[in-house]
Amino acid sequence: MAQNKEVVKGVEWRINVGDGSSERVGHGYMWAMTAKLAMKLYIFVKKAWELGVNDPRKFIHCLKVGIALTAVSLFYYMKPLYDGVGGNAMWAVMTVVVVFEHTAGATIYKTINRICGTSLAGFLAFGVHWVASKAGDEFEPIIVGVSIFLLASAATFSRFIPTIKARFDYGAMIFILTFSVISISGYRIDKLMDMAQQRISTILIGTCLCIIVSLTICPIWAGQELHVLVTGNLDKVANSLQGCVDQYFSHSEASAEVNDEESNKKLLGYKCVLSSKGTEDVMANLARWEPAHGHFNFRHPWKQYLKVAASMRSCASCIDALIGCINSENKAPDHIKKNMSSISLKVGANCASLIKELAITMRNMKKSSKVDILIMEMNNSAQELQHLLKSYPNLVNAQDIETEVAAEIEISLVEIIQVVTIASLLIEIVARVKCIGRCVEELSDLAKFQPAICDKSKHHTVDNKINPDPEKDEEAINNKLEIV
Amino acid sequence: MAQNKEVVKGVEWRINVGDGSSERVGHGYMWAMTAKLAMKLYIFVKKAWELGVNDPRKFIHCLKVGIALTAVSLFYYMKPLYDGVGGNAMWAVMTVVVVFEHTAGATIYKTINRICGTSLAGFLAFGVHWVASKAGDEFEPIIVGVSIFLLASAATFSRFIPTIKARFDYGAMIFILTFSVISISGYRIDKLMDMAQQRISTILIGTCLCIIVSLTICPIWAGQELHVLVTGNLDKVANSLQGCVDQYFSHSEASAEVNDEESNKKLLGYKCVLSSKGTEDVMANLARWEPAHGHFNFRHPWKQYLKVAASMRSCASCIDALIGCINSENKAPDHIKKNMSSISLKVGANCASLIKELAITMRNMKKSSKVDILIMEMNNSAQELQHLLKSYPNLVNAQDIETEVAAEIEISLVEIIQVVTIASLLIEIVARVKCIGRCVEELSDLAKFQPAICDKSKHHTVDNKINPDPEKDEEAINNKLEIV
Repeated sequence: MAQNKEVVKGVEWRINVGDGSSERVGHGYMWAMTAKLAMKLYIFVKKAWELGVNDPRKFIHCLKVGIALTAVSLFYYMKPLYDGVGGNAMWAVMTVVVVFEHTAGATIYKTINRICGTSLAGFLAFGVHWVASKAGDEFEPIIVGVSIFLLASAATFSRFIPTIKARFDYGAMIFILTFSVISISGYRIDKLMDMAQQRISTILIGTCLCIIVSLTICPIWAGQELHVLVTGNLDKVANSLQGCVDQYFSHSEASAEVNDEESNKKLLGYKCVLSSKGTEDVMANLARWEPAHGHFNFRHPWKQYLKVAASMRSCASCIDALIGCINSENKAPDHIKKNMSSISLKVGANCASLIKELAITMRNMKKSSKVDILIMEMNNSAQELQHLLKSYPNLVNAQDIETEVAAEIEISLVEIIQVVTIASLLIEIVARVKCIGRCVEELSDLAKFQPAICDKSKHHTVDNKINPDPEKDEEAINNKLEIV
Repeated sequence: MAQNKEVVKGVEWRINVGDGSSERVGHGYMWAMTAKLAMKLYIFVKKAWELGVNDPRKFIHCLKVGIALTAVSLFYYMKPLYDGVGGNAMWAVMTVVVVFEHTAGATIYKTINRICGTSLAGFLAFGVHWVASKAGDEFEPIIVGVSIFLLASAATFSRFIPTIKARFDYGAMIFILTFSVISISGYRIDKLMDMAQQRISTILIGTCLCIIVSLTICPIWAGQELHVLVTGNLDKVANSLQGCVDQYFSHSEASAEVNDEESNKKLLGYKCVLSSKGTEDVMANLARWEPAHGHFNFRHPWKQYLKVAASMRSCASCIDALIGCINSENKAPDHIKKNMSSISLKVGANCASLIKELAITMRNMKKSSKVDILIMEMNNSAQELQHLLKSYPNLVNAQDIETEVAAEIEISLVEIIQVVTIASLLIEIVARVKCIGRCVEELSDLAKFQPAICDKSKHHTVDNKINPDPEKDEEAINNKLEIV
């Protein structure tokens, strides 16, 4: 009876154990399971929420999709519009769901592809339908079937061709879709013309709505994203480079330990650069569909951003090797490091400040007068490092002469290996940073960046009397940094 | 009159020049333009054709799409089937176009997502419709509108969450699509139940057809593609490494010049490795949807392939730095190189043969007895290189003592920089190759590779008497190499 009562009281789980006896698993177990599930759900929701909080534009995008879909529902709810486009208003809903993408570029790309693909397929399907209807009832299904087979195969193959894949992949798919649907319907439905017209008009309504909502409410431009990504990556490379040189050569261990986690994060920033190729390619591909926005014209040289990114990645892979050598077994003792530290730190700092200046140039879209000076400084410090390397034998030799202990020479030379490697890699990094500089310079020519104001005194006059621009610029930079 | 005749004779183009006179452009220009266009078209078609010839599976895929689409047309052409699924057979056509992807994994992924997304959205839409119908005519459109807004926004947001994006991105889109279409139709069409049922049955027909065609006619498995890509990349890394070490240290310039282009291509193979992360991620993501195929089980550890690839990329970025140093300005003279060449070549060759053996291990899915020996050999040669580096001061010192010319020491030490850097990088590369080895070993444990036959004499017996397997293995390897 007691047992029965318990069963009645609540749900109870039983697990059959191997020996045939059954173990009662009461409320406790169920609660534990539920709590565990709830905990998992809570963590999932929390993480998702943080994802949105970190980039509120994600929330805005979701609201935009909701708005566009609710707006398109009007075509069903409002009687006059409903009568106008007929029962096919469903196509408008589908268009909104399929075409509305995160970035404006992607939305425009899909819109244009969808309209072109649908129109082209529609015309072709009409042609085939006309030919088939002339051929008689016997041959009609054969002609339609063969044409679907051939055109679907050809369009599918075109999606493998890189240039078409990059620009018209979605269009090719929509072409196959529309052609198949219209061709097959043509065999059954006599009102083919009406259907095609309705499909095109509903798609136009849907795409127009998408474009309007996408471009007017907080638009997210693929071009701007690419711009922010590449300039941000430049900063990451600069921080990683300076971070690892500082960490290796500077001797203030106390300060290193304090900001350990943060500095580690900075140090590993170059890894993001190594893995961001895919995103960059996609963004550059979408950006070319976008109209002029912000500081960017319609035909902004987005491809040049990819070149900057490639040169940056080549620099990042050198930093990867550098960090590998720093962590290698052949540790150099402190007195050897000390000898090289000041000049190596200088090379690292100069490289980093050049990269940062290049990032600022790109961000402001103004040629910087500092870049040339910074390149010169970087070259000079690299030269100094070269000279120091060349002076090393003298140094060892001098020790040799002073101490006359062969063993000491041995130690000095073995110990030097790591430092020499790091110095060589730094010199290689300098060469690659120069390459980034050239790519950014090409970009500044292609995108017609405003020239730098070279004369300092002139600059000052502008500052103080005529134009309050510089302050605005400062503000603009800060705003852009916030976006990053 | 003469002019008129000319106009009648053929099409004529006129270009208005700035000064108002018109320049007659005759047949010649038109022909040139047409020929140019035809030439461009010819080149385009030729390139596209070569694309297919290089990978005939692309042609096969196109034929498969054609077959699937023509097959689905039967549902329209054949009267009984047409009556069965009604006018909504169009959904089956759309499903085939949208779901049929290049790899089996992608097709299965889209199939499962489409079915789950449609079903879930269907149930929810029914629920909302039921609630709305109870609420009265006034509130019905409001409830439907609000539910569309909320669910579409939530589902759109879910597509930003990495885990959902990786597995259910398409499903989320289909969920929004189906929910919107059914909800909105529910307000107009009374036969909602019929519509939903038809949609689900047509989608089932379309997806089944896709799965059957995709998996039975020359299936392209994402897992197999990933496997071939990663093992091929291992070979590329091995070739690049050996190639650049050989090119730097070996002195047979004549032979280098003969195969210049081919060896250059081999040398730059590591760049493919650096840029193949995106493809690998996609393939690994799709492979987990695939059933057991070839040598791979259903839960083959595809993620481990990504780890192997990551360790390989870290090795490749070191090779990139190595090549940078080889091409740097600090050239070492031949006599310095000669001193290091034999041991460096040995390190390079040992690394390369270990990587190649790891590739063979992965390809055959059998643990190799050679790997341990090769790792030992690689370690030994790296040790030798370390010792040689350590002996350098002695060497210089010896020279010093013999010649007593300080200038000579200076030269030897400056000239050594490049060689020392390259040696350090080689040692770093050895460490990273070991990391690849560890990843492949983990893979062999996770995927339960067949154990190696350690005993050589035993192996021989097997060779000669009991089992003709080794020959078959050789054939299998060759076949697989051909696939690569």
